[in-house]
Amino acid sequence: MTQTNRRILLAQRPNGKPRLEDFKLDEAPLPEPQDGQVLLKILYLSLDPYMRGRMSAGKSYAKPVGIGEVMEGGTVGQIIASRHPAFSPGDIVLSHSGWQSFAVADGASLRKLDPAAAPVSTALGVLGMPGFTAYAGLLTIGQPKPGETVVVAAASGAVGSAVGQIAKIVGARAVGIAGGAQKCAFVRDQLGFDAVVDHHTSDFPSQLRAACPQGVDVYFENVGGPVWDAVFPLLNDFARVPVCGLIAQYNDTGRPAGPDRLPHLMRDVLSRSLLIRGFIQREFADQRPAFYTQMAAWIASGQVQYREDVVDGLDAAPEAFIGLLEGRNFGKLVVHVADHAEDEGL
Amino acid sequence: MTQTNRRILLAQRPNGKPRLEDFKLDEAPLPEPQDGQVLLKILYLSLDPYMRGRMSAGKSYAKPVGIGEVMEGGTVGQIIASRHPAFSPGDIVLSHSGWQSFAVADGASLRKLDPAAAPVSTALGVLGMPGFTAYAGLLTIGQPKPGETVVVAAASGAVGSAVGQIAKIVGARAVGIAGGAQKCAFVRDQLGFDAVVDHHTSDFPSQLRAACPQGVDVYFENVGGPVWDAVFPLLNDFARVPVCGLIAQYNDTGRPAGPDRLPHLMRDVLSRSLLIRGFIQREFADQRPAFYTQMAAWIASGQVQYREDVVDGLDAAPEAFIGLLEGRNFGKLVVHVADHAEDEGL
Repeated sequence: MTQTNRRILLAQRPNGKPRLEDFKLDEAPLPEPQDGQVLLKILYLSLDPYMRGRMSAGKSYAKPVGIGEVMEGGTVGQIIASRHPAFSPGDIVLSHSGWQSFAVADGASLRKLDPAAAPVSTALGVLGMPGFTAYAGLLTIGQPKPGETVVVAAASGAVGSAVGQIAKIVGARAVGIAGGAQKCAFVRDQLGFDAVVDHHTSDFPSQLRAACPQGVDVYFENVGGPVWDAVFPLLNDFARVPVCGLIAQYNDTGRPAGPDRLPHLMRDVLSRSLLIRGFIQREFADQRPAFYTQMAAWIASGQVQYREDVVDGLDAAPEAFIGLLEGRNFGKLVVHVADHAEDEGL
Repeated sequence: MTQTNRRILLAQRPNGKPRLEDFKLDEAPLPEPQDGQVLLKILYLSLDPYMRGRMSAGKSYAKPVGIGEVMEGGTVGQIIASRHPAFSPGDIVLSHSGWQSFAVADGASLRKLDPAAAPVSTALGVLGMPGFTAYAGLLTIGQPKPGETVVVAAASGAVGSAVGQIAKIVGARAVGIAGGAQKCAFVRDQLGFDAVVDHHTSDFPSQLRAACPQGVDVYFENVGGPVWDAVFPLLNDFARVPVCGLIAQYNDTGRPAGPDRLPHLMRDVLSRSLLIRGFIQREFADQRPAFYTQMAAWIASGQVQYREDVVDGLDAAPEAFIGLLEGRNFGKLVVHVADHAEDEGL
């Protein structure tokens, strides 16, 4: 049986919210690994908010996906052919192979995973980029102290759930923001946040204020928009705001109506000695070994819980991604692309 | 001869730009020092942009001056009566006694000055709060590295002149912004900045861009307004923005017209991994001893130059302060309130 590589390409740049027509399913022959490379069968594809940025042409911290190119993304794959001495068929690895069912990758870019240690899909979530984003951004930039209040939105999601639980571990008070009763119950009852506020309710700003009677010392910013508007007045003197995402703004087009709030923001930055710091996790790459060890221990002890939202089949990725931008996922969103083979026949 | 205390009070809160009617000259009997206190004759009064904030009722990092109260400010005074064991008549000290000709102060709040080491007025400028603001904000928050570009506005002023010269000392490239040809020549020729741009010129933004061919790594923000607008697009990835003042915005009233630039700012903070950090020098108080030693050495070696703009007589303070907010001073603005006595008869 001749296998083909199913790929999802960027068909056109979205105007505002991405639509299904912005993606295109394609079939191509299986690629051939060269010396130093491996051929991978993709098992899991990670869907993350940052991918919206890659669909646009504007300058950002990474170059955009080109029209007609495979959509970018983190993946877990199983090696089916290897021309790299460190990898053998059957090995399961973390790669950045994008939205496709097979891929060639340089051996040097891969991290081998141990399926006995944790479900391999966690390498895309709590034990991967989102978990590390939470860990490095909260501890290095946010620096919460015991008794301080940490607020994070998308609190049932991949990054937010880790931020709140790590905040608890270091002795801070964790206040989550989530959309809908089901997610809020999960954040409070399963993840153990001290308080949770539903941003769908009409009096969300006053509920948030009530949930933060001592103000806010760390706001881990991953959404922007109306949540920022509600949190900003609550920031205490010397509050820290690590900024890792602005999902509520990614689909914005045009120039927002006035008044211009920038001068007021800067006055508050000055009068309250605020820190605002954008970051991408890779600038803290030297902390990754410590993170893997620490997070695995927290998961083993039950101090960090995680939830995955698994979508079946590569073809479902575009619709699932559109839902992610609207908050329809519940937990870390991953696409199950293929089962992994237990034997070497694959 | 009975001496009276001449005092300048806040008569009313300004609406926009302060006017002379917002101040009131007053005479009162000389205050009496209690145990642990001293009576001071004020020699120099510092005039600084932050005082505009104290004239308004809004929340800030310090409480506002009350209507009918003496305007706040740093001062150099000479002790004429002491009920504190560490101070004797004739001693010259740094105090925070405000806009008046005499004052009582707690001995514990004073720092004794050595008139032989440096002109005592420098304790209000390059060797005082403004110099320390430059030192702590630039080195602790800005952290310029050799070869990086540091931009500062009000570059002939108390803070800006120190920022650029310290940037040069640590090996960075210093680009100043100043208003008018005379100040620009001083910044370039006397202070030794690598480049200077006049913000009065019509093509200021493009001149600034030309002066920063490698972009901007540290923008020491002390003015806000149109200068911010010109600098912000030039900020490199990982740029740092210590914010110690926003003099161009202090007289603003009402809500600025749109579009709302806040969402765009946050997107750039994220995509360029920017750091924006408001601060007041006193949070870095533990660095003051190192600062006094280091800055005195830099002045002695000629690596740091300073310029004072001395106005004569307390009564001239309101008009001089109004001019400061309009950039009419040239160098650190101080009011010469009285001569210091060389003998103990005072």
